[in-house]
Amino acid sequence: MRRLVVFFVALFLLMNFAFADEGMWLLDQLKDLPWKQMQQRGLQLSPEQVYHLKDAVVIIDGGTGEVVSPNGLILTNHHVAFGAIQRASTPEQNYIQKGFIARSREEEIPIPGYEVVFTVDFKDVTDEVLKAVHEGMTPLERYEALAHRQKEIEDKYENKKKHLEAEVVEMFSGMKYYLFLYRRYKDVRLVYAPPQSIGNYGGDIDNWMWPRHTGDFSFFRVYADKKGNPADYSKENVPLKTDVYFPISRAGVREGDFTFIMGYPGRTYRYRSSYSIAYHQNVNYPFQIDLFQTAIHTLEQEAKKNPEVAIKVSGFIKGLNNGLKNNQGMLDGFRKLHLLEKKRKMEQELQAYIDSHPEMKKKYGHVLQDIGKLYDNLMTYAQRRNVLRALSFASLPATVYQAYRYAIEKEKKESERDPAFSEKNIERTIEHLKNRNAMFVRDADKALMKVFLKKALELPEGQRLAFVDEIVQGKTGAEAEAAIDAWVDELYEKSQFKDLNSVIPLFDKSRKELEAMHDPMIEYARKYAEVMMPIETKNKEFAGAISMLRPQYIRAIYEWKGGLLYPDANRTLRFTYGDVKGYMPRDAVIYLPKTSLKGVIEKNTGEPPFNAPEKLVELYNNKDYGPWMDNELNDIAVDFLHTTDITGGNSGSPVLNGKGELIGVAFDGNYEAMTSDYQYNIQLTRTISVDIRYVMFILDKFDHVEYLLKELKVVQ
Amino acid sequence: MRRLVVFFVALFLLMNFAFADEGMWLLDQLKDLPWKQMQQRGLQLSPEQVYHLKDAVVIIDGGTGEVVSPNGLILTNHHVAFGAIQRASTPEQNYIQKGFIARSREEEIPIPGYEVVFTVDFKDVTDEVLKAVHEGMTPLERYEALAHRQKEIEDKYENKKKHLEAEVVEMFSGMKYYLFLYRRYKDVRLVYAPPQSIGNYGGDIDNWMWPRHTGDFSFFRVYADKKGNPADYSKENVPLKTDVYFPISRAGVREGDFTFIMGYPGRTYRYRSSYSIAYHQNVNYPFQIDLFQTAIHTLEQEAKKNPEVAIKVSGFIKGLNNGLKNNQGMLDGFRKLHLLEKKRKMEQELQAYIDSHPEMKKKYGHVLQDIGKLYDNLMTYAQRRNVLRALSFASLPATVYQAYRYAIEKEKKESERDPAFSEKNIERTIEHLKNRNAMFVRDADKALMKVFLKKALELPEGQRLAFVDEIVQGKTGAEAEAAIDAWVDELYEKSQFKDLNSVIPLFDKSRKELEAMHDPMIEYARKYAEVMMPIETKNKEFAGAISMLRPQYIRAIYEWKGGLLYPDANRTLRFTYGDVKGYMPRDAVIYLPKTSLKGVIEKNTGEPPFNAPEKLVELYNNKDYGPWMDNELNDIAVDFLHTTDITGGNSGSPVLNGKGELIGVAFDGNYEAMTSDYQYNIQLTRTISVDIRYVMFILDKFDHVEYLLKELKVVQ
Repeated sequence: MRRLVVFFVALFLLMNFAFADEGMWLLDQLKDLPWKQMQQRGLQLSPEQVYHLKDAVVIIDGGTGEVVSPNGLILTNHHVAFGAIQRASTPEQNYIQKGFIARSREEEIPIPGYEVVFTVDFKDVTDEVLKAVHEGMTPLERYEALAHRQKEIEDKYENKKKHLEAEVVEMFSGMKYYLFLYRRYKDVRLVYAPPQSIGNYGGDIDNWMWPRHTGDFSFFRVYADKKGNPADYSKENVPLKTDVYFPISRAGVREGDFTFIMGYPGRTYRYRSSYSIAYHQNVNYPFQIDLFQTAIHTLEQEAKKNPEVAIKVSGFIKGLNNGLKNNQGMLDGFRKLHLLEKKRKMEQELQAYIDSHPEMKKKYGHVLQDIGKLYDNLMTYAQRRNVLRALSFASLPATVYQAYRYAIEKEKKESERDPAFSEKNIERTIEHLKNRNAMFVRDADKALMKVFLKKALELPEGQRLAFVDEIVQGKTGAEAEAAIDAWVDELYEKSQFKDLNSVIPLFDKSRKELEAMHDPMIEYARKYAEVMMPIETKNKEFAGAISMLRPQYIRAIYEWKGGLLYPDANRTLRFTYGDVKGYMPRDAVIYLPKTSLKGVIEKNTGEPPFNAPEKLVELYNNKDYGPWMDNELNDIAVDFLHTTDITGGNSGSPVLNGKGELIGVAFDGNYEAMTSDYQYNIQLTRTISVDIRYVMFILDKFDHVEYLLKELKVVQ
Repeated sequence: MRRLVVFFVALFLLMNFAFADEGMWLLDQLKDLPWKQMQQRGLQLSPEQVYHLKDAVVIIDGGTGEVVSPNGLILTNHHVAFGAIQRASTPEQNYIQKGFIARSREEEIPIPGYEVVFTVDFKDVTDEVLKAVHEGMTPLERYEALAHRQKEIEDKYENKKKHLEAEVVEMFSGMKYYLFLYRRYKDVRLVYAPPQSIGNYGGDIDNWMWPRHTGDFSFFRVYADKKGNPADYSKENVPLKTDVYFPISRAGVREGDFTFIMGYPGRTYRYRSSYSIAYHQNVNYPFQIDLFQTAIHTLEQEAKKNPEVAIKVSGFIKGLNNGLKNNQGMLDGFRKLHLLEKKRKMEQELQAYIDSHPEMKKKYGHVLQDIGKLYDNLMTYAQRRNVLRALSFASLPATVYQAYRYAIEKEKKESERDPAFSEKNIERTIEHLKNRNAMFVRDADKALMKVFLKKALELPEGQRLAFVDEIVQGKTGAEAEAAIDAWVDELYEKSQFKDLNSVIPLFDKSRKELEAMHDPMIEYARKYAEVMMPIETKNKEFAGAISMLRPQYIRAIYEWKGGLLYPDANRTLRFTYGDVKGYMPRDAVIYLPKTSLKGVIEKNTGEPPFNAPEKLVELYNNKDYGPWMDNELNDIAVDFLHTTDITGGNSGSPVLNGKGELIGVAFDGNYEAMTSDYQYNIQLTRTISVDIRYVMFILDKFDHVEYLLKELKVVQ
């Protein structure tokens, strides 16, 4: 473990925050945290002991999971497991609805394409990466030099024999670079999922909301070959032996208890400039909200047609709803917290400070202005870019485009290729396609393509898409829309590609071979590429330029204010800590930090998403709680709140007490703090976790899963 | 003041209530209340002193008002004043939107038809009324005997010279009868209304909701002739001199403070049987919800057409929305609290108790069964009745029908006429018509008639309406609807009655004269009467029968359980008391009992109904609070909660502290306790009041209304 050079920036001063509990810390920063204070609050472990726990915290699909037995048993969220449960389901055996229980190893269901990834090691490789660039480079050159160097390092550390994958990621917006080594397991099997009426109780209505009453958990098991190495699914595989795993605490939580979390948060924007905020507030979120609403509406129409389609698109709709609520919450939050105004004011003060210090003025005098220019330029193609992105929701043409785009890349030398199209990435893309194909619904795909092509009709002069103008031939209004409908119908009709699997062979073909097929879907891909590729270049130029400017921006703030700095989330393993704590969401309202089974019953209407299972109501009525009751509530505790700093990707993370025992599974942030991705706020930012005793109560009293109860290690 | 015979029924036992704070007490019950306990909680007045305050509590339009100066100044709610402010407004001078300030007597605006009614005296007249009935009567005979006796007594006590109106009302569902004497003032002038963005801040979204941030208050002044007697509007009139009025307390409220309210609650159903609950839950509320939604939708479509129509129908829509939310809340509440199941269980226990006591079995053995039969019979015409009622939303044909129906009644001897069609009532009807005419929108009226005639198409066999079947002539679906549209268009087109005023002369005509006019609207009235009048008779039979059974039901419960009994609300003056107190609306949520100006700002979106005036935001930003700040909140207190027992009609009631000083103006109940009309619940039932210091802050700092500030008496 290398010691990280720490940066001192008082975020709490410049952003009006209390410092405590903010931060998604890299594990090599543990020693720099206020350990004494954390110990006073209840932590009983040393930094080394916490670091050691990393071996039990994994990436699983889009979330995080934790190892909870020596035999590779993984606990995560129901909503992380959703895709897997969905894939295991059929209209006859709907495990989403009724839940799934394996009562022996034999009954566990393999989920092809579902993977579990362990972090084996990581280190700072900043010097190695930054040697690739020098001052005279153009933004595009800089971008490409950095991308290629990262790939070189990855290639150097990749080790197929040892089953090690390497990934180099930037930290602090390019101020630093880290190498991570992963081990990826591909034989993952579904072990237990509660019925949706527990695992997703409250559904999209309660999503992001407190008070919450969701039993958002599921279990998987990781299998390996007999040597313990990753292997494709095989009957011969055995459960992965794991040295480090979390015991389960029966002690429960009270307001003020110390907690910590380890997990893989996806993305935060804590160091973004006002220009970035303005872009998201005024352009990106409003567009995406419209996009999500349109897609949801379109898919819901398709889902009504038959129950099989409904199952197939349910996961997609769920994800879209989640994104929609997130984006709306972001916008609400930006406005409510006046984030943009605050950032602008801070930057004015920063500029004044820079201007009054000659040394700083030399280094940072233009940084704000330069960032501003980049965003001004972005605005000249932002809408066009957004519509092009939206079109990729129609997965069949989008996949044909991917194959076509890859063929273009293949014409370059391997070393000059865009690393996004590395062999490794393409292999993974193809793997994903195979699994996604089961969820592919052609009519839904067509419907999405139609609505998003129609969005292109609203683009302003200068950002219009040539291939769309070609379709509508100067028509407007209903006539233009009819032309699009007819064109899409013909496209899907005449193309030989009918599902995602049928596209896979295209990834082996050259551009010439593709074009010689004379398939209208390939012709569409060619035209799409004509407008998309220049935008890709612009994106790279933007990335190259901003990767110079953002580190300067952060350094300028650091030199101005000082403080202890953590890098933005980027899906690498992080540590965060905080207390069990409620909050005041608004004037005259107090939210307590724990919900109870009583609250599940209160919300029960019998109609989804508030259809508590009868058995659960019965257990409540009989107070049949076994050893899982919360003594403070005199009831089963269902979910709880704490001040830890997490974001999307953390879903399923272990919530641990001061001894490192499992007290919960994190599954959400709260609506009022949606903007925490931009700004943590100790008054409002909360993690929502399912109480581990609710998990145990469901396994024990609701479903009598002796198989699992025997395997889990419960401590008092 | 006569002493009331008090009944002892332990409502809290049979209904699972804490007793304290429940009850809308008649003022002759004051001495029977637990005065010692009330004094320990903070009341400093004697029963006589409280009784004395009745002279300062008035009926004003649909709500309650209180006298707050010796010169007839009346404080009530903005939503009670809404109709008056609306009538004073024009598209150019929209006082709803911008508020209204009189800065001198001359600027006060007379509101024709707006009345203030004082309770002069009241007494128990049970014996006098019940002498009119004997055991052998049929239900219809009983109903008519009671109605005529009540009218006789009223006639006896009416005194035009002394400007006294008399009204006999039943208490305890007919177990007792009371005579009330009123003095009605007709020259009422608008003095002050805040802008809607204060007076109705939060609008229909926040209606019934806590936390609330509405400044729901307005001022009027009552004018009289020079002798202080009621008189029609005249320039010569002078402000009414009033001996009793409420001083305004600056002391503010804290959780646990004692409060009491006097006012005119409209209607409660605390002693209803399970059969009544079942009828409301399964038939009446679902129908009304549909009715309100349909009417709102129809009127909103009309309102879109032009701003004048929008103003005219705004009050109607507001009322409908209120009714809709109420009915939905009722249904929600019934289900959530399992009211029907609880009542049924209680009645089973009651029946078992009756059956096991021979004396009781003799008196009450059949009462539950008999009530059940009445409701079974009601079900045979309930849907038809509901549709006929809905049709009265179209006010033009409904008014013509009223005149026609009155003509039928006039054919009888005065003593045999239905008292509902007494001269007095008809005079009042005509007065109302004149005022309502200003709000009449012919197209909206037509649209309502169309949609509700279409509802009649859904009636089951046996309840169908002959005159509707005649219109559609066997057609169904879209064809039937088109037939109705055409018929209504023709009806309004061909009728000579174009607005409500044009109908007034009809009230002077005989049935023959009316029919001789050969107006299609009169022909409609005739056909409507053919189906409506038999239902009127059924209603009377129901009323006659239930007026025997309900008192027996209440007496049986009393003999079973004991307790202290208050009569259901019936729009007569009542007293209720309780503490300032928050509540837990649901699992893990605490509502505090006071909101603050901070909360107003939090909710401010700039868009109605959350468009706080800029001036208000400025006052908040500058903490420019004058002497009106709440020291506990360190902010302006806006609204507060207390446990007093009120309902619709109490809107605008004075909220008083232990000294009888004004601390607030009651304006709402909370959503979670909507079913309080059926069942008070100390855990959930709350009154929502505007803090009197918010009223004063708005007058003082926001609008600088020196004129009023000088007149009001403020005490510390």
